[in-house]
Amino acid sequence: METTEPDANVTRIMLAVNESSIKGYPHASISSRGAFEWTIQKIVRSNTSGFKLLFLHVQAPHEDGFEDMDSIYAFPEDFKTMKHRDQTRGLHLLEYFVTRCHEIGVACEAWIKEGDPKEVICREAKRMQPDLLVVGNRGLGPFQRVIAGTVSEFCVKHAECPVVSIKRRPGETPQDPVDD
Amino acid sequence: METTEPDANVTRIMLAVNESSIKGYPHASISSRGAFEWTIQKIVRSNTSGFKLLFLHVQAPHEDGFEDMDSIYAFPEDFKTMKHRDQTRGLHLLEYFVTRCHEIGVACEAWIKEGDPKEVICREAKRMQPDLLVVGNRGLGPFQRVIAGTVSEFCVKHAECPVVSIKRRPGETPQDPVDD
Repeated sequence: METTEPDANVTRIMLAVNESSIKGYPHASISSRGAFEWTIQKIVRSNTSGFKLLFLHVQAPHEDGFEDMDSIYAFPEDFKTMKHRDQTRGLHLLEYFVTRCHEIGVACEAWIKEGDPKEVICREAKRMQPDLLVVGNRGLGPFQRVIAGTVSEFCVKHAECPVVSIKRRPGETPQDPVDD
Repeated sequence: METTEPDANVTRIMLAVNESSIKGYPHASISSRGAFEWTIQKIVRSNTSGFKLLFLHVQAPHEDGFEDMDSIYAFPEDFKTMKHRDQTRGLHLLEYFVTRCHEIGVACEAWIKEGDPKEVICREAKRMQPDLLVVGNRGLGPFQRVIAGTVSEFCVKHAECPVVSIKRRPGETPQDPVDD
């Protein structure tokens, strides 16, 4: 088959990341970290200049009218100037991934949007047109899924770009498997 | 997160490939070629030594008792010794992909199994434990899917490894979109 589109300079991989439901402070969820580590170890590998990672964190709407932040975070220093109020809203989550990317040497961007995670992830994937969307999932059974819902299933079905869903490793499942 | 498993030497990507339903002779389907090109352009990129591609072609059972071939094809020369009877059964399909891999310089293996494609792909993914399974899909609408069924949806749902389904590009859709 002929290559019908020009070879882009880098492969852009979008990762939807979220906070852990276990710890009080906004750490990355087990699934998010698993999806990130899989992307680095299995896809990026040593070819750090061939990829760019796009981290999206979707916040549930806040009563006090918190609005979308259009800021894009690409360097660890970008987080030093953030306001305290933003710190409590998941920017530490993005700082974790941006710092890891800089340690590894892979380019990245990170941003936050507000809304229903599954809808916003698909909307942002449509806007950003990544080559691949990576989402973590808790690997719940059918009964737990009915209760907990899964963002990953929705994205696999509705996102316009290729999507891969990375299951949490069984050994990493917390006491309550709905937690993450 | 700590890396809990040793960094494997290569990322093993399994591609389920099938024959075109359009042409008389066993060429690769449009979806299969699209899934392959996406894997090379977006994932492997220039890092050819970091990946190994595993091509599985599943044949529908034949009346004359054709059995699983346990042969593995890894080099273009491997196809020179094949019997004529095998040529008509999709080995040319594998030869296409193995030859392309050798042109590109990425290691590969290819093999054929008999049975129901969706079941066999998931069984072989379980046996081979690839890091990623790539399947092509025709990008059919909901109504066409009910009639045509889709192997990719089944694999996304049932395979134990991460799965990415690569939609056929709209410009490549044949006259009858159920064809491929």
